[in-house]
Amino acid sequence: MNPTKQRVAIVGSTGYGGVELIRFLQHHPHVEITSVISASSSGAPMSDQFPHLDSIIDMELDGVDAVATAAKADIVFTATPSGVSSTLVPQYLEAGLKVIDLSGDFRLKDSSTYEQWYKHDAPEANYLAEAVYGLCEQKGNDVQDQRLISNPGCYPTATLLGLMPGVEAGWIDHSSIIIDAKSGVSGAGRGTSLTSHYAEMNENFKAYKLNKHQHIPEIEQVLSGVVGEPVVVTFSTQLVPMTRGIMSTMYATIKGQHSEQDWIDLYREYYSDRPFVRIRKQGNWPSTKEVAGSNYCDIGFAVDERTGRITIVSVIDNLVKGAAGQAIQNLNRMMGWEETLGLKMVPVYP
Amino acid sequence: MNPTKQRVAIVGSTGYGGVELIRFLQHHPHVEITSVISASSSGAPMSDQFPHLDSIIDMELDGVDAVATAAKADIVFTATPSGVSSTLVPQYLEAGLKVIDLSGDFRLKDSSTYEQWYKHDAPEANYLAEAVYGLCEQKGNDVQDQRLISNPGCYPTATLLGLMPGVEAGWIDHSSIIIDAKSGVSGAGRGTSLTSHYAEMNENFKAYKLNKHQHIPEIEQVLSGVVGEPVVVTFSTQLVPMTRGIMSTMYATIKGQHSEQDWIDLYREYYSDRPFVRIRKQGNWPSTKEVAGSNYCDIGFAVDERTGRITIVSVIDNLVKGAAGQAIQNLNRMMGWEETLGLKMVPVYP
Amino acid sequence: MNPTKQRVAIVGSTGYGGVELIRFLQHHPHVEITSVISASSSGAPMSDQFPHLDSIIDMELDGVDAVATAAKADIVFTATPSGVSSTLVPQYLEAGLKVIDLSGDFRLKDSSTYEQWYKHDAPEANYLAEAVYGLCEQKGNDVQDQRLISNPGCYPTATLLGLMPGVEAGWIDHSSIIIDAKSGVSGAGRGTSLTSHYAEMNENFKAYKLNKHQHIPEIEQVLSGVVGEPVVVTFSTQLVPMTRGIMSTMYATIKGQHSEQDWIDLYREYYSDRPFVRIRKQGNWPSTKEVAGSNYCDIGFAVDERTGRITIVSVIDNLVKGAAGQAIQNLNRMMGWEETLGLKMVPVYP
Amino acid sequence: MNPTKQRVAIVGSTGYGGVELIRFLQHHPHVEITSVISASSSGAPMSDQFPHLDSIIDMELDGVDAVATAAKADIVFTATPSGVSSTLVPQYLEAGLKVIDLSGDFRLKDSSTYEQWYKHDAPEANYLAEAVYGLCEQKGNDVQDQRLISNPGCYPTATLLGLMPGVEAGWIDHSSIIIDAKSGVSGAGRGTSLTSHYAEMNENFKAYKLNKHQHIPEIEQVLSGVVGEPVVVTFSTQLVPMTRGIMSTMYATIKGQHSEQDWIDLYREYYSDRPFVRIRKQGNWPSTKEVAGSNYCDIGFAVDERTGRITIVSVIDNLVKGAAGQAIQNLNRMMGWEETLGLKMVPVYP
Repeated sequence: MNPTKQRVAIVGSTGYGGVELIRFLQHHPHVEITSVISASSSGAPMSDQFPHLDSIIDMELDGVDAVATAAKADIVFTATPSGVSSTLVPQYLEAGLKVIDLSGDFRLKDSSTYEQWYKHDAPEANYLAEAVYGLCEQKGNDVQDQRLISNPGCYPTATLLGLMPGVEAGWIDHSSIIIDAKSGVSGAGRGTSLTSHYAEMNENFKAYKLNKHQHIPEIEQVLSGVVGEPVVVTFSTQLVPMTRGIMSTMYATIKGQHSEQDWIDLYREYYSDRPFVRIRKQGNWPSTKEVAGSNYCDIGFAVDERTGRITIVSVIDNLVKGAAGQAIQNLNRMMGWEETLGLKMVPVYP
Repeated sequence: MNPTKQRVAIVGSTGYGGVELIRFLQHHPHVEITSVISASSSGAPMSDQFPHLDSIIDMELDGVDAVATAAKADIVFTATPSGVSSTLVPQYLEAGLKVIDLSGDFRLKDSSTYEQWYKHDAPEANYLAEAVYGLCEQKGNDVQDQRLISNPGCYPTATLLGLMPGVEAGWIDHSSIIIDAKSGVSGAGRGTSLTSHYAEMNENFKAYKLNKHQHIPEIEQVLSGVVGEPVVVTFSTQLVPMTRGIMSTMYATIKGQHSEQDWIDLYREYYSDRPFVRIRKQGNWPSTKEVAGSNYCDIGFAVDERTGRITIVSVIDNLVKGAAGQAIQNLNRMMGWEETLGLKMVPVYP
Repeated sequence: MNPTKQRVAIVGSTGYGGVELIRFLQHHPHVEITSVISASSSGAPMSDQFPHLDSIIDMELDGVDAVATAAKADIVFTATPSGVSSTLVPQYLEAGLKVIDLSGDFRLKDSSTYEQWYKHDAPEANYLAEAVYGLCEQKGNDVQDQRLISNPGCYPTATLLGLMPGVEAGWIDHSSIIIDAKSGVSGAGRGTSLTSHYAEMNENFKAYKLNKHQHIPEIEQVLSGVVGEPVVVTFSTQLVPMTRGIMSTMYATIKGQHSEQDWIDLYREYYSDRPFVRIRKQGNWPSTKEVAGSNYCDIGFAVDERTGRITIVSVIDNLVKGAAGQAIQNLNRMMGWEETLGLKMVPVYP
Repeated sequence: MNPTKQRVAIVGSTGYGGVELIRFLQHHPHVEITSVISASSSGAPMSDQFPHLDSIIDMELDGVDAVATAAKADIVFTATPSGVSSTLVPQYLEAGLKVIDLSGDFRLKDSSTYEQWYKHDAPEANYLAEAVYGLCEQKGNDVQDQRLISNPGCYPTATLLGLMPGVEAGWIDHSSIIIDAKSGVSGAGRGTSLTSHYAEMNENFKAYKLNKHQHIPEIEQVLSGVVGEPVVVTFSTQLVPMTRGIMSTMYATIKGQHSEQDWIDLYREYYSDRPFVRIRKQGNWPSTKEVAGSNYCDIGFAVDERTGRITIVSVIDNLVKGAAGQAIQNLNRMMGWEETLGLKMVPVYP
């Protein structure tokens, strides 16, 4: 063990979020992974399930045991399903660990909203109150020295990074926001289902959970905070026959007169000191492959003078900026380290 | 030659629209293909370029020569690029052929609108005036005994079938229409380009021509006709890493109070005698694979009471209902035949 | 019910083989589907599970009940897993139905070989003895008026059509045969598994069951019959990230001197009256897309004078010629009908 | 410019090999990219063609000018097509640069063999003689302090790493070697063609250049060197509908008695100190996704006692270990640096 490094445990190491955390943390100079944890596969070598990690992480999977984990780690990432984190996270906190939670369980401040959209019991109120929502590029967001960070959802990350500057500037009629979001299939996780069955999803484009996705209240909570009054949005989710990537295409009525270059300038200013948001030039819109495997969020604009609407295109890799990458970014900010540590991966293109 | 059959020629036989026409016409009881025509590959056996047609259509490609074609065919499908049909179609008409045109050249009634969006010269005005727009399921649409049918575009077909009943019924605020459309890559044709290059497009989701697509005025022309006043829409086009399929996701503000079941009933009534439009049950939205290889258009709905908006999901196979299939449906209607002749293909699933 | 048609039942209607039978039988002039059967989904409308069949086959799924099926059908296709057909098929036979079995249970004549490779009990010996192996293009194969036809496996079909003429002619050293076979993922069926999980299989090429696949003894049984002595082969199976298609690439040492054109001529002669086998010209090898959705098997050759070996490339659609299509071809031959009835589908290209 | 780093130029920066070199060199501690060179796009910002590199490499493309390049670089990677490197490389050498060539032009020692397989003129003989073939894991291979390294081809890398230990040990009958190789489509480069056209290649598996591929003499040259007499092999190439990855499946008759574990032990010993070759456990074969984006070559075995043959499965990422990654590995070895510098990328999974 290297005493100068933070010792990190990963719960849910056999899911895609967990595996992606491992991939990035191999490149992190201040972190040592000391425990990979799986409720279902405890005792098995990690590389049995993931031969791609052979000779990279030669550890056995640990079981879920907060006290045992606290003895060998300082920080835990919980890449567990919603409904599981709600009970696990308090255990880890009480055992003295800092927690960065990748499930959705600690994102909504209001228990009843949580229960309405997630369809199961909310975590205890004091943990909800304590959890800091870690949308890294949000103005004023501060997670340093917190002990419980709630990592944003994949769709909300792409969407909010695309909407916040325009909404904050008052250039968007926030009652008009319509979000058409598309995700690669890895977003559905590693649990098998007919939806994720190769022959069903390959060569297919599929809508699901229209107006019902649990990321809707998360988006609305942030936007409502930005404008200071309740915002409701129309939000559609769709599966694309590819493994990674989210595109959020957003439509809204423009308030005032703003050219495409105005929008570009506004966003470049908002994100001027943020290394992971890139704003495209006029007439250029990002595609998901251009951020694949990286922590970037790329954003482009189209102003339609005929209808007075703005179209905003925002892309991320759902497993990186939408999950593991942003979680490590939150770790860096929690620890007061440079934000990009371990995250300077160039997109894998083509 | 079978004297009881209509003799059909296909211009653009080496493009995807042409090949798809050949696939369906093999099953058509009243049609005989007597000429496959290609400006670039004249003289070559068809199956040299398309080995999948070996032993199915063992003909050589003919060149473009309207008089020669008129000697061996009664009807010609022009599956040629826009800007080519505009000059070819008049030649075929003057040679005495009936024409079903799959390019966009004869869809817009207004020459200046055509030139604004298509960026080249419009066909002569008398041909524009003569051409009948063949959106088969449009109320009142009649192509019987016409000699020039303009086959609708792929995006407009999916979109208009999804919007027309709601717009006609006055249930949609037509100033609020936003269309987020996605297409498989075959829509870009068989000409090579970096956009259609495998390694660039595979595992990628990509926006293009936002607010600039030439199908916008086509959609607006039809909707304006339905409501009797100018309609403008926001329309986005995106490429999906799959070969076939279009999904058009449409958003609009609902006028009045209408439940999802009301929408379903309205559309089932509108399309009650139309064999190729299927309306989904409540809570079920179509995916592109569910119509692949067939002439169906499947439509589903989601009403969002929180925002007062309707989301309409419409899918087609871009090469079938969006091109060759609808062209044959127009042939059937032009000839007064049963509409489904040659078109009863079951979707290829999975 | 149409009294002039054969009444057909399909067991395993919710699997891919069953759905593909339904697709093709819609186009069959002498067949009426009177029962779709599923052990697991009895009572549910077929189109609930497969919306692509809405308005095409509006029936409810029946349960497994041989007597009830015999009351409404003349012929049953059993598209059930191996180990299930072995007990189901005798029930249907005893109830008076004719059976075309798509599982592997009745292909191997030797019970002990079956049990060695399939790892469960073989069917009763008298049924094994009665079953006729239905490789339609095999010389001397005759299924007319039989009551139990065992439909060949997908890999054996592609492989044997590629090897039989050369082996029979004595041009192939049968001790040298190596078969490198590749299949689309639909071959693994509709049951979910990590192997067929989209994110695992997409953008992946994967070997499995090397030297252990249960199709090995099926291939060897046929080849041994052709040469009159035991043949053993090396046979590898691999998954390709696509839904449909098998390519079998076969290597063998050439006996004698035979040019590529000689091979082409030999095979064209062997398959001269067989509508579903197409032999490519010199220098042209088939790809899987060129037969997709159709009942064709396309074959090409490469002679390597440097090594004295022949490479034979054979492609089929695994769900058509490798399953449902050949099963219907067997139905046609069993009934003495024209072999191509219901099967004249043009490959879906692109 | 950082004086402690080697200054590197990349010719062919707008091809996939060039872009992948850039991706990896961003993580190399001892390298600074000082020039990105493209014959066709000189003067354009790199990120105009590759927006994914925006804010990562904000340079303009230089033209081909050996003297100008020598003024700003110490080492040049030539990721140019075969036939181009043959004339470019001498210019760079004469200008004083060290060269690592990724084309095939300097791999074959015999000019006439080159011209037979490559179909154009070979480079001048003295350069062929000087070039050192850089298959990093080959026993005895030494490139340190050389000025011209010829980087191995993608297929030969996967194949030779899979064959060399067995051939050297005399466990393989080298007259029996058959290689069935499959590649993702990026191997065909960034130039557009019908073969790489999305709708043609997607959902397709395709054989090409059977017995004619220019990598055949490269494989034979190395194997002949290992055994000390001429070796000829049967070698097939096939395209898989995925972007990255090569699997080479190799068949050979075993000499002597060797169990699967014997093979595993033999290969583990041969590659015991080589960080980028991983040998799988018994019964486990690698898939291409398990090395995607990384410099690993993973190898597995299947012994068939029935036929006396070994099947060897070897996978790499064609753009990494098959091109850019191995080129950087050669740079490290040329400079006497640690072999893994800049190359410790974890496979991107899923």
